[in-house]
Amino acid sequence: MAAPKLHLDGLKVGQVFHSAEYYVSADEITEFSAKYDPQPFHMDDELAKDSIFKGLAASGWHTVSITMNLLVKSLPLAHGIIGTGVEKINWLRPTRPGDILRINAKITEITISPARPDRARVNIHISTVGQDNKVRQELVGKLLIFRVSQSSGAF
Amino acid sequence: MAAPKLHLDGLKVGQVFHSAEYYVSADEITEFSAKYDPQPFHMDDELAKDSIFKGLAASGWHTVSITMNLLVKSLPLAHGIIGTGVEKINWLRPTRPGDILRINAKITEITISPARPDRARVNIHISTVGQDNKVRQELVGKLLIFRVSQSSGAF
Repeated sequence: MAAPKLHLDGLKVGQVFHSAEYYVSADEITEFSAKYDPQPFHMDDELAKDSIFKGLAASGWHTVSITMNLLVKSLPLAHGIIGTGVEKINWLRPTRPGDILRINAKITEITISPARPDRARVNIHISTVGQDNKVRQELVGKLLIFRVSQSSGAF
Repeated sequence: MAAPKLHLDGLKVGQVFHSAEYYVSADEITEFSAKYDPQPFHMDDELAKDSIFKGLAASGWHTVSITMNLLVKSLPLAHGIIGTGVEKINWLRPTRPGDILRINAKITEITISPARPDRARVNIHISTVGQDNKVRQELVGKLLIFRVSQSSGAF
């Protein structure tokens, strides 16, 4: 990424980041599931037909992991993307073989630490969207972000 | 798993499930990160020393994924473990190379669907703990669970 790296003072509420696209193959779905979510509807297309998913569906944790991959490539933070937790995830539709995912991320809250004003908790709302423009997942993550120096104050 | 499969009527608030153990190697940490969270502190021990983590740390999404692996093997639901979302994740400490993780999971809420009484939303609180008994992650997940049949009512 040639984009300049961001510190806390370069972020503001409402700021939006968009990602590139990520192609999801059936092989990647079954490989992830075999390791981390070994259930029939995530691993076998035939068995998945008889499940609530009516066909092979990625693990929600796989959708989340792809979302993180896209976020790392879209949000150039100087200290890296350090998550302290998650306030919400909703899986609205499963990711399917052949899906092309992208994310839209928006800064929704910036709370400077009262005890340590060199850092803030920043909430980010991330929608993970498919090639059909339908949302697969909504997530609100909590990030720890540092100020470049306490004397700078461009924003 | 030889354990009998559970339906909604076999679950109650306060019920607890424990898992086996999961050994986390440095290779698995860097392999996961390369695919889904490609940041220096998750991929390279030397670079990680200069980060907030002070050494190689697993991606939080990797800890979550291992947690799911352990849950699938510990909670024998007849219809499978179908997550509709997450109410909370907190990463309290990073997972490190050589960690041996296990989970303690507790049913905290069961809400029968008003519109479709054959199913319920079940909240499950999962603590992911290391060999040192220190908690790496707390998670509250939302599951969709089906009643075996509407006429049964053992609980």
